[in-house]
Amino acid sequence: MSQALQQHHNLTMYRDEQLLATASALMPTLHSQAISPVSVINTVPDSHALHGWRAEKVADACTWLKQPFSPGDSFILDFGTHGVGWLNFICEAAGSPPDAPAHLEFIFGETLCEMAEPFSDYQGWLSSSWLQQHHEYIDVLPADITLARRYCFRYLKVRVVALSPKYQLRFKQITLNSVSSAPDEYPPCNATDPQLLKIDEVAVRTLRNCMQEVFEDGPKRDRRLWLGDLRLQALVNDVTFANHDLVRRCLYLFAGHRREDGMVSANIFVRPEVRADDTFLFDYSLFFVDTLYNYLQVTGDISTARELWPIAFRQVELALARCEAGLVTDSDEWWSFIDWHDRLNKQAASQGVLIYCIDKAVRLAEVCAPEQVAFLHDQLTWVKRAAHQLWDEASGFYISGSARQISAASQIWLVLADVGNAAHQLNVMTNLLQSPPSIGMNTPYLRHHFIAALLKCGLRERAVAEIKAYWGAMVDDGADTFWELFDPQRPDFSPYGSKLINSYCHAWSCTPAWFIRQFGL
Amino acid sequence: MSQALQQHHNLTMYRDEQLLATASALMPTLHSQAISPVSVINTVPDSHALHGWRAEKVADACTWLKQPFSPGDSFILDFGTHGVGWLNFICEAAGSPPDAPAHLEFIFGETLCEMAEPFSDYQGWLSSSWLQQHHEYIDVLPADITLARRYCFRYLKVRVVALSPKYQLRFKQITLNSVSSAPDEYPPCNATDPQLLKIDEVAVRTLRNCMQEVFEDGPKRDRRLWLGDLRLQALVNDVTFANHDLVRRCLYLFAGHRREDGMVSANIFVRPEVRADDTFLFDYSLFFVDTLYNYLQVTGDISTARELWPIAFRQVELALARCEAGLVTDSDEWWSFIDWHDRLNKQAASQGVLIYCIDKAVRLAEVCAPEQVAFLHDQLTWVKRAAHQLWDEASGFYISGSARQISAASQIWLVLADVGNAAHQLNVMTNLLQSPPSIGMNTPYLRHHFIAALLKCGLRERAVAEIKAYWGAMVDDGADTFWELFDPQRPDFSPYGSKLINSYCHAWSCTPAWFIRQFGL
Repeated sequence: MSQALQQHHNLTMYRDEQLLATASALMPTLHSQAISPVSVINTVPDSHALHGWRAEKVADACTWLKQPFSPGDSFILDFGTHGVGWLNFICEAAGSPPDAPAHLEFIFGETLCEMAEPFSDYQGWLSSSWLQQHHEYIDVLPADITLARRYCFRYLKVRVVALSPKYQLRFKQITLNSVSSAPDEYPPCNATDPQLLKIDEVAVRTLRNCMQEVFEDGPKRDRRLWLGDLRLQALVNDVTFANHDLVRRCLYLFAGHRREDGMVSANIFVRPEVRADDTFLFDYSLFFVDTLYNYLQVTGDISTARELWPIAFRQVELALARCEAGLVTDSDEWWSFIDWHDRLNKQAASQGVLIYCIDKAVRLAEVCAPEQVAFLHDQLTWVKRAAHQLWDEASGFYISGSARQISAASQIWLVLADVGNAAHQLNVMTNLLQSPPSIGMNTPYLRHHFIAALLKCGLRERAVAEIKAYWGAMVDDGADTFWELFDPQRPDFSPYGSKLINSYCHAWSCTPAWFIRQFGL
Repeated sequence: MSQALQQHHNLTMYRDEQLLATASALMPTLHSQAISPVSVINTVPDSHALHGWRAEKVADACTWLKQPFSPGDSFILDFGTHGVGWLNFICEAAGSPPDAPAHLEFIFGETLCEMAEPFSDYQGWLSSSWLQQHHEYIDVLPADITLARRYCFRYLKVRVVALSPKYQLRFKQITLNSVSSAPDEYPPCNATDPQLLKIDEVAVRTLRNCMQEVFEDGPKRDRRLWLGDLRLQALVNDVTFANHDLVRRCLYLFAGHRREDGMVSANIFVRPEVRADDTFLFDYSLFFVDTLYNYLQVTGDISTARELWPIAFRQVELALARCEAGLVTDSDEWWSFIDWHDRLNKQAASQGVLIYCIDKAVRLAEVCAPEQVAFLHDQLTWVKRAAHQLWDEASGFYISGSARQISAASQIWLVLADVGNAAHQLNVMTNLLQSPPSIGMNTPYLRHHFIAALLKCGLRERAVAEIKAYWGAMVDDGADTFWELFDPQRPDFSPYGSKLINSYCHAWSCTPAWFIRQFGL
């Protein structure tokens, strides 16, 4: 994820070198795979296609690359699939010895719009430095060059900007050496529905491409470990690559650099050294508890759970400190993520997250600190009971904030929090399906929780239909990997002011594979 | 130099690995010196300044660089002198942890016009890839970065293109690690005239910055070993840095890769392996003889002279093969350099070069192959006598080509060839000074031969005056190093269609130091 900006100056942070040493020892091996371009394409305006562009094949890549190129020549390579890694190319001069440097421009795109729409027009509010481009000046030919930065793309535009009139340029090879810390092998999907099988395939590729030295949110942007994404990635990892050490490493990274009061950050930088961001989110910090609980459930690694338990417990304490009469206090200056939505009031959904995570804390405490179970149980009862204050009988929905906002997020999270009995929860979800509030769902991240809530209420068929309608629509639009943002009604939506900067391989969108495999859909 | 393009396909070349091994063993050590920026400047339009731009100081560089910079910030650093080498900079984020890459743009300039006039406007016919610019995307901060390419500049424009709103960028250091194979120490200049002392200083710096792994023509462009430049550089090297091994290395490089018929190329590429260019110039090939002769004179290294003698002799044979009745045959499809001048007929000047170089061949043969002296002497007499056919009594000038063109170049070279007696030569030069032909001198390269001819005729004071008027004018215009091209009447002149691409530190312009020191001016 990327959050509207939060900045804290003069923060005092605590660094636990022992925990960081454990994280460091768990640095994964990256597996590499060479991907060659398949074809050369043009982008053609098409109002029926995603973002208004479709690809038109010009030639097979291997045939095309046999020709020598001149200044002004430009072409778009389609690698056939989305990949993350290092671009290598081998080129030579055709003609006289090269008496001037070769100047090449590369533009990398996850989508066709990055090929068709000039980056110079970008007006979004996230840094344009995320737009993937590179100028290379080659002083010596022939050359075997691997660009220094990692890129994330399916499409590559190559422009021969300048040579000398005495030579042309010939490419011997252009390769994406893709990397991932996911192993090559993973269990097959047992679904029989071809559409679900395809959705699973795209979801697994999404996770694979986000699995690097940490679980990244998006390998194009922000390339970073976010707690909210980690929690969902860990679920899919459990039923596919089973790289539990990577989950463990990420938990230790969050634990290793915390705010003075013990709060874990929403995200972690790992280079040049491990450093927590100064973004703190109510919900994300709590998810440390759930992620640790899930890790323990899957691995049985009690010693890790016990070592990290105090940090998990501290997140609950800090969240509880925000409560008044058992309710999360709303205000203008707090931060909880829930969804990318400008108008969404976060109080009710955050209450749901708090209940959900205290419940997991109780279960962790049973293993790690039985003496704290009673306390946590009391707190759980307290905040769960308080949640009923948010219920609005007239609408049949939970309300949030002083303006009594009704949103999809509030319903979803209070159902996931198991507030009310099963019949009540089913009523809430049914009402949500029948009378969707205007404050809806913007991200696949919230959509994940929607599906989870449907399944919790036994609405299995509806869950499948929603997965197909949402993630299936991305597949129909040509997704190789699932996107950070997708609103079927507004395919150009970006909270950042430009679809060019959206991430099109995004961790929090990979969960259909978990639903399909875990629930045998 | 750079020559209007000559291309030969399917050339058969001869590679002498033994000679190339000798060249390789003579690879020089590069001496490094760190140069820090002195000040921050603006470029201000000024019709009285070179190219219409003067520098206005904004701040001391060290003070300026203490501030943090934001996207859109841009500044020009003045390093106070011209240097060649690697740019290193250390920078860090000021504010939150850097949550997006830093995108920086660097533009390097030998002159202010490269800072003030956008490269995107460049319309010259040499490759725009020579214009020195670089985009750097920094994924991890703090960063200590040395750019991969060598640059040549006094001025550096730094533009902070994009950061994230969460941090600013601070530079801890920006340094040019300059390199040269010239030693730090060299004999002082004994001139007493302050203007000549200043010209000597600039000339020596020009040579130093061109002395790298070979004698380069220009460290900005073409960065390459040209025979015509080497010959003049070797002269200045003799009276300054005395790095005779570098001259020897360059002679072996030319000798090591020749055309099938034995002709040495006009220039040599040394990476990825030694390779002669497919440009062959009548005069430049002959200068192999003169350069070898000069090397022998200065070093007494007879074994090198003997080993390379057959190659030198072969250049004379090939040139003689172009003669009819002792005169160099003119035609439309031959190549002789002489000067950068579209309308210059090269016949008479080439005749002068031929005579000049056979004379040196005779002297080399006396040491290397006495049995060939008589033959060469006969040839010298033959071509020298034939040169008289070019004399036009009516004008008091030598004519060239079927259109009987009168040019400065023809007079200069036939005087240097010692055609006619001393009185006749003095008359020619006097006539040239009093009635300069419309086909004049375009480059410092031809200007060198003009000064040499004046000195040969005893016109010492005039030579000094011409050095001051020409190279002194560059100094007055702010030259740190002498330029590839300079016409005091047309300061924007470029044979390439843009002054941006001219080289402003160019080997063939460094010879005033030789005149001043060798002739005790």
